[in-house]
Amino acid sequence: MKVLDAKTIEKLVDLNEMMDQIEEAYAVFGKGEFYMPPRPVIEHDNKTMMYMPCYTEEVIGTKILSIFPENGKLGLPAIDGVVLLNDGKTGTPLAVMDGQAVTAWRTGAVGGVGIRHLSRKDCRTVGIIGAGVQGFHLALYACAARPIETVYVFNHSDRDLTEYLKKLEQAIGRPGVKVVQCATTEELVKNSDIICTATPSETPVLPEEEGLLTGKCIIAIGSYTPKMRELSDVLFRLADQVMIELPYACEESGDLSVPLEKGILTQDRIVLMHEYLAGDRKDVAYGQTTCFKSVGMGLFDVCVAKKLLEKAKENNL
Amino acid sequence: MKVLDAKTIEKLVDLNEMMDQIEEAYAVFGKGEFYMPPRPVIEHDNKTMMYMPCYTEEVIGTKILSIFPENGKLGLPAIDGVVLLNDGKTGTPLAVMDGQAVTAWRTGAVGGVGIRHLSRKDCRTVGIIGAGVQGFHLALYACAARPIETVYVFNHSDRDLTEYLKKLEQAIGRPGVKVVQCATTEELVKNSDIICTATPSETPVLPEEEGLLTGKCIIAIGSYTPKMRELSDVLFRLADQVMIELPYACEESGDLSVPLEKGILTQDRIVLMHEYLAGDRKDVAYGQTTCFKSVGMGLFDVCVAKKLLEKAKENNL
Repeated sequence: MKVLDAKTIEKLVDLNEMMDQIEEAYAVFGKGEFYMPPRPVIEHDNKTMMYMPCYTEEVIGTKILSIFPENGKLGLPAIDGVVLLNDGKTGTPLAVMDGQAVTAWRTGAVGGVGIRHLSRKDCRTVGIIGAGVQGFHLALYACAARPIETVYVFNHSDRDLTEYLKKLEQAIGRPGVKVVQCATTEELVKNSDIICTATPSETPVLPEEEGLLTGKCIIAIGSYTPKMRELSDVLFRLADQVMIELPYACEESGDLSVPLEKGILTQDRIVLMHEYLAGDRKDVAYGQTTCFKSVGMGLFDVCVAKKLLEKAKENNL
Repeated sequence: MKVLDAKTIEKLVDLNEMMDQIEEAYAVFGKGEFYMPPRPVIEHDNKTMMYMPCYTEEVIGTKILSIFPENGKLGLPAIDGVVLLNDGKTGTPLAVMDGQAVTAWRTGAVGGVGIRHLSRKDCRTVGIIGAGVQGFHLALYACAARPIETVYVFNHSDRDLTEYLKKLEQAIGRPGVKVVQCATTEELVKNSDIICTATPSETPVLPEEEGLLTGKCIIAIGSYTPKMRELSDVLFRLADQVMIELPYACEESGDLSVPLEKGILTQDRIVLMHEYLAGDRKDVAYGQTTCFKSVGMGLFDVCVAKKLLEKAKENNL
């Protein structure tokens, strides 16, 4: 059985390959060649274990998350976990991987695929709202998908971002790409062609200014409960369509449920990403506002983990 | 995160420590210091993934089994799996272990604890019915618990056991201990002070002969569904009491449900092992017939896995 820790996974990741793999996952999704049952959740004493299985033909993946809200007091992340891969035909355990790393690289790749298909090819700026792990990885994928020259970063707290910005610039590792902090979201949105939101906010982090948001590509990955919202109301007037992965997201994320309830978004304007990718697509035009709201799904984890395992084998790890 | 494969686990196992650990697990069970919820089971296309979580104060263990009945056609075991250990206080993943190895060593240890407390101290012979992985491990624990001189082995098929017997003798590794095949269960029972049954039989493997079974210590671990039976009716006339781990076993195992239904066993004669171990016990007398029917429980896996992790750390593995 292979064991891939976070460092090994980082070494194995090729950003473009990962985005290709997510597109492959959308194709598997479109063909229905998977089984993703409801997630068994065990809770005891405010300590939750969540088992997220997903069957594909080649592998069965289970993301196993521990969700311990009290961890904050100890300075530890509330959510930790592993991804287990079993052989799809025999059930044999094949690999265990660092769950935080798989999640970060796959969430970034999902955002990256959004950028690939919902932003203009000549975008040179990206703004990241939420200077966390997900924002970090989204920035890397954005730089892989588009000829980015400047990455803008905004964080709601007054945490010193010096180290974060430096690390991000190093991780991007492309001469000439600058990483710059913004004092406000308005400043960030104004400067950025592509805007990625990756916060746990319960009120919109995007400004309610039409002039600022017109012609932008918005990738929102933060909200995964009905209480959480990152997208502003005005966005739903600007973007003709909102891309999502699963109809379920409309209930799960406040970024969709709230505008649907308000009537500023309607179901006929919601498009499933796998259908969009499988159809005839036009390049994004100047002035066109696009939006992808992602909540993720287990199938992505499995497909990304499978790719990582293949790469580990290729590299004799 | 530590990863313990089957070979590493084999090196780390100290049979007496493992049996001590099972006794410790009974103490934890008695104090109620654990949480063992119903097992989430996912089934798709005749491929089952079973998640068996058990919370203790120090660690949360999850045995994750893949149950693929079609594997027989490929010459692979139907059941495979891993044991995942998370920190009980923070949820951090601590270790992944070979599930087959943990299961084999813990099931053997559970049987061994039965032998420790339900057989006479001077037992010099043990008979194993069912020459499989579980039988193999039961034999090792029997030899650790009692001054065994001869291990008798019976298997229902005509499979050549030469290699199995040789390996078992080597694994016992005690000069003077012989491992001998028996042609019939009658012969095995006649020769053995302790008899361990570890088969998937649906009809009793023990003979219906009072004379043969009187004064024996019976450890039955094979039956885990209502259809499976290893114990013969006569045994319930000879043994005053039948030890079990959990009341649930009376429904789960045909070795208990069938005699209960027939009325040859009554609930008042069923004793929970953790209560028996916690109470005042007398040494087993000559002529006394004893019986322990084990179906196992997740708490044993967690406690054994926890011990293995401790030993791995001590040994800098």
